[in-house]
Amino acid sequence: MIKVGIVGGTGYTGVELLRILSTHPEVELTAITSRKEDGLPVADMYPSLRGKVGIAFSSPDKAKLTDCDVVFFATPHGVAMAQAPELLAAGVKVIDLAADFRLQDVAQFEKWYGIPHTCQDVLKEAVYGLPELNRDAIKTARVIGNPGCYPTTMQLGFAPLLKAGVIDAGSLIADCKSGVSGAGRKAEIGILFSEASDTFKAYGVSGHRHTPETTEQLQRLTAEPVELLFTPHLVPMIRGMHSTLYAKLKTDISNEALQALFEDAYKDEEFVDVMPFGSHPETRSTRASNMLRLALHRPGNGKTLVILVVQDNLVKGASGQAVQCMNLMFGLAENTGLQHVPVMP
Amino acid sequence: MIKVGIVGGTGYTGVELLRILSTHPEVELTAITSRKEDGLPVADMYPSLRGKVGIAFSSPDKAKLTDCDVVFFATPHGVAMAQAPELLAAGVKVIDLAADFRLQDVAQFEKWYGIPHTCQDVLKEAVYGLPELNRDAIKTARVIGNPGCYPTTMQLGFAPLLKAGVIDAGSLIADCKSGVSGAGRKAEIGILFSEASDTFKAYGVSGHRHTPETTEQLQRLTAEPVELLFTPHLVPMIRGMHSTLYAKLKTDISNEALQALFEDAYKDEEFVDVMPFGSHPETRSTRASNMLRLALHRPGNGKTLVILVVQDNLVKGASGQAVQCMNLMFGLAENTGLQHVPVMP
Amino acid sequence: MIKVGIVGGTGYTGVELLRILSTHPEVELTAITSRKEDGLPVADMYPSLRGKVGIAFSSPDKAKLTDCDVVFFATPHGVAMAQAPELLAAGVKVIDLAADFRLQDVAQFEKWYGIPHTCQDVLKEAVYGLPELNRDAIKTARVIGNPGCYPTTMQLGFAPLLKAGVIDAGSLIADCKSGVSGAGRKAEIGILFSEASDTFKAYGVSGHRHTPETTEQLQRLTAEPVELLFTPHLVPMIRGMHSTLYAKLKTDISNEALQALFEDAYKDEEFVDVMPFGSHPETRSTRASNMLRLALHRPGNGKTLVILVVQDNLVKGASGQAVQCMNLMFGLAENTGLQHVPVMP
Amino acid sequence: MIKVGIVGGTGYTGVELLRILSTHPEVELTAITSRKEDGLPVADMYPSLRGKVGIAFSSPDKAKLTDCDVVFFATPHGVAMAQAPELLAAGVKVIDLAADFRLQDVAQFEKWYGIPHTCQDVLKEAVYGLPELNRDAIKTARVIGNPGCYPTTMQLGFAPLLKAGVIDAGSLIADCKSGVSGAGRKAEIGILFSEASDTFKAYGVSGHRHTPETTEQLQRLTAEPVELLFTPHLVPMIRGMHSTLYAKLKTDISNEALQALFEDAYKDEEFVDVMPFGSHPETRSTRASNMLRLALHRPGNGKTLVILVVQDNLVKGASGQAVQCMNLMFGLAENTGLQHVPVMP
Repeated sequence: MIKVGIVGGTGYTGVELLRILSTHPEVELTAITSRKEDGLPVADMYPSLRGKVGIAFSSPDKAKLTDCDVVFFATPHGVAMAQAPELLAAGVKVIDLAADFRLQDVAQFEKWYGIPHTCQDVLKEAVYGLPELNRDAIKTARVIGNPGCYPTTMQLGFAPLLKAGVIDAGSLIADCKSGVSGAGRKAEIGILFSEASDTFKAYGVSGHRHTPETTEQLQRLTAEPVELLFTPHLVPMIRGMHSTLYAKLKTDISNEALQALFEDAYKDEEFVDVMPFGSHPETRSTRASNMLRLALHRPGNGKTLVILVVQDNLVKGASGQAVQCMNLMFGLAENTGLQHVPVMP
Repeated sequence: MIKVGIVGGTGYTGVELLRILSTHPEVELTAITSRKEDGLPVADMYPSLRGKVGIAFSSPDKAKLTDCDVVFFATPHGVAMAQAPELLAAGVKVIDLAADFRLQDVAQFEKWYGIPHTCQDVLKEAVYGLPELNRDAIKTARVIGNPGCYPTTMQLGFAPLLKAGVIDAGSLIADCKSGVSGAGRKAEIGILFSEASDTFKAYGVSGHRHTPETTEQLQRLTAEPVELLFTPHLVPMIRGMHSTLYAKLKTDISNEALQALFEDAYKDEEFVDVMPFGSHPETRSTRASNMLRLALHRPGNGKTLVILVVQDNLVKGASGQAVQCMNLMFGLAENTGLQHVPVMP
Repeated sequence: MIKVGIVGGTGYTGVELLRILSTHPEVELTAITSRKEDGLPVADMYPSLRGKVGIAFSSPDKAKLTDCDVVFFATPHGVAMAQAPELLAAGVKVIDLAADFRLQDVAQFEKWYGIPHTCQDVLKEAVYGLPELNRDAIKTARVIGNPGCYPTTMQLGFAPLLKAGVIDAGSLIADCKSGVSGAGRKAEIGILFSEASDTFKAYGVSGHRHTPETTEQLQRLTAEPVELLFTPHLVPMIRGMHSTLYAKLKTDISNEALQALFEDAYKDEEFVDVMPFGSHPETRSTRASNMLRLALHRPGNGKTLVILVVQDNLVKGASGQAVQCMNLMFGLAENTGLQHVPVMP
Repeated sequence: MIKVGIVGGTGYTGVELLRILSTHPEVELTAITSRKEDGLPVADMYPSLRGKVGIAFSSPDKAKLTDCDVVFFATPHGVAMAQAPELLAAGVKVIDLAADFRLQDVAQFEKWYGIPHTCQDVLKEAVYGLPELNRDAIKTARVIGNPGCYPTTMQLGFAPLLKAGVIDAGSLIADCKSGVSGAGRKAEIGILFSEASDTFKAYGVSGHRHTPETTEQLQRLTAEPVELLFTPHLVPMIRGMHSTLYAKLKTDISNEALQALFEDAYKDEEFVDVMPFGSHPETRSTRASNMLRLALHRPGNGKTLVILVVQDNLVKGASGQAVQCMNLMFGLAENTGLQHVPVMP
């Protein structure tokens, strides 16, 4: 059994880790920290876990995280980099669901997150945790920077095209839409029910942290300079993410060949579902599961390819992907504990 | 492996059966019928099941239901009673999620459902499928009338009190609220998104089919005549049911004793969670799981006890309960394939 | 033109006052205070008011409230009582949308609101602002305690029955459901979109402030001791309130006579709509309007009468009702500025 | 008073016309037709209109539409073209909210709507009813083709840029999102609450009717060939439309100059609100009003301009715009009866 610790288990990615790990057959949940909730049984905060999770939150000083085999950070940016060195020194693997170990470009990190990066040694060995594009490195990693939710959809949607060199890397557009849980479990006016339901809006249009993360990763797939325009929107739904990707084709290529490109790229991937050409995937078809689904469209048979990508932002976009990485790091079957059937309706 | 057939798999209780059964370790999904969708792979209608359910719908005449060990009817009222005799003769067990085998009082059935009961022989041996109140009979049953969603909450909420004789059976009030999926997957104006969201209403207040069903069952628990006033409402949410039950205490009894009554009644029940006195259970704490949670209140320490009961109407209120019955009928552990952790948020 | 001031205009009842008053033909919006937002144009916080409301928030010390004819308090409990004496001394009328002037029983006020009542002289002359039951007193009032949202529905639903003496005043039950905007515009976890959507729960079941307020008012209508059991619930919708009221009939009375009782009681009331016997009013049929609709049911033709009452909690349940009072206090037609057609769908 | 008839008043654009017209000071509602609902008081179908609209539906043969001054068609495509000639001959003006008189290119109409255009004479004189771009022609029109909801946002968002010649007309992208009411009030599975809430999807990505309509109109603004890629999505909200428009700048132009372009274009428009550069308009800021709001963004100060446009799809996107046209056609102030303050929250 893998002994697992969670730092910061009171937010949505934390409770989603608990939901997944509580039925993972190879995991023993050892410690979960919260400064504020020390001593509170986890199931008192989250009644959905009554009878499923027996442990209590403990304050960081009491939790014996160094006895764990792996520690997940479901914390604000900056926490993992402060604690990782000690854990690594004790032989504990680290999976950070925040941004501390996502961006190798430290200047970009500091620009977008507004804090200095205090742990650049560890950053150098950190592995970007997107298994479909980075599986081998994840298997041997000690530190994982788990991808952002939006970046996961953008990368898996553009990757086969960039690798094959069939699109113009310099004019990518990603018009993305996320459920409100992506904003976290924070007491903020803007995400109140009465503010965020029965309405729709864009945010961060002039610039968003997920642009440099995605660009850095996409650039690894092509020699051409990548230019990405990313527009996030807030959808009045709890979970779910839908990315509508636009790419200019630069070669003469048939729809069949494009479809084959994606089917080949993901033919061995259990968590990426390439739907028939012209499908319209719905976010709910992935709800509460680790599936990502995508489909291609070519309106008017023109030069622009549209790729529709959906996932559950809290699972494949966060906690499920983190567990997928953990499985790889510990030599388990990649789908262990991740075979939930999406909840529909 | 239990060979399972489903009649009428295109509605919400049908697709929920598929979600649950597709990961049930002792079940082989053998046949699923739909007159209209003959030949269509199930996963084409429900993309959430892509990669999880491989079979296609077949028309009733082609489906070899008599080769199954058990057949679930997720159909409109009246279908199961037409097909049950042939299946039973072939040694197939029958679990009906509609009302054909719920009411032993045929006159009540015919009054409320508006069709003649054509299968009264089978009805006589049919067992009401509420395991917590009827477990032994279910174990040996050949035919199950699976309880309605509202009746499940009302019975499990009132039962310990009626059995103990501490409330006035003649003045029960149940003010109940259901998510919209309870109305089924039918093309009707009233349950369109634009009609049923951002609004709230009662329906069927002057009379509803679930009153006679619940009364008949509650009457088995007490010699006093049961009088139940049941008011259903429609909530703008997909899944979930919340019943607010009012009962007049007729004896002098402490809150501690009342709480103990419930804790004793359900101490061995995995799917009934008695929360601390004064709790406010939320429907989402049961979402996509077979859990039912309840809590007691006694406002102003007066003579009226309020019992709050929540469940997922499609799981404990329908398909999960049906699988729970199947497990009992086939000698499996009652929780086999039913250990989903509720999805929250 | 009536010069109007608003204290605390950043919450939902404040912005709803602004929506209504900005098109009220007899009103000039003079001042709106907010300590935190001093100098901010109102329309910058509420873009829905761009081009409709030109003034800016000003801090309480700068706002010349004593120059107004009337001041509305859309503030937390306790604010109005601190400022009312000075305004009244200056000849300004006061309408408080919070609880400071609702309860004549000071002990009850202090018990339920947890603050001392510091303004009992003013309280004595304060008038409870429910026009349908208290019109004459409102016309000559200097201070109005505007009713709570739930109490409005309970009073207008029970009043004709209590006045006529046909129900048992000692066993009233009110099972009430409110949209989330009723909880206000506060940064609290519990009313986040991801916490309050796609779920349903009760709250405050063991005791709620609106019970003593409603009981005090209902008691004015009957010599029998009133006992009220009130259970509030939170509905995943923005606006709207639905109260399901249960009353025991103590006399032999026909449904026609009961219906006539209500039609007579409200025949001259523009804002109370008595629907046909057996109707199921929906909250959305009152959305964004000052209408309250109700309908009677008598399940099984028994001894319990069910009254269904709906309103928009922010309009008839708060700001609309306050403007209705203002119209009466200034001798205007009662419906001035309040003739919005409900927004449907 | 203008005598108004409505054909097909049972859908959402019909009931929205009723909401608006019932308080329009210059309108007398004369007739409203529905084959199915002949004799039914309008307020029985739409309780929101109780006390506001007194007339009943009448079957088309009984309704004296030729006595009206103007008739609105809130019907499926094809109805208006069948009835317009007779009405015009009788001197009645016609405003069609469907597509019969939107597209001058008959071949395109027949391709996308799948029916022959049987009324091409009338089509020739029909005027496209977008007042901000076509006001003078509307004033003297006898027949109006009221714009589609999506096309309204796309045209008002792209128009100032195309007129000024600062963007590449050949690579326009419009990623648009609509509330579910845009799909109409039809009994269809896909728009049930349980299918369309808590999820998000695109539809019609390979081709949609609003592309040729929008292209035809935009082409009138520029000599360059217009190429538009339009991707519609369904948002789990009732009302509201958000269009995210992408345009490639082809000249060196400052953000200030771009903003000025829009402010100049719409400086006299009461229903178009140009928000400050970099704003994020929300659909709810226009809810139940005839306002359209837009804002400009230039991510990374690059070559692509992003224009965010919001409106209420049923008002500025349909019935409000139709009334705006009517006001122009009858010489009234353009905003008569259209001054609703958006409902927020």
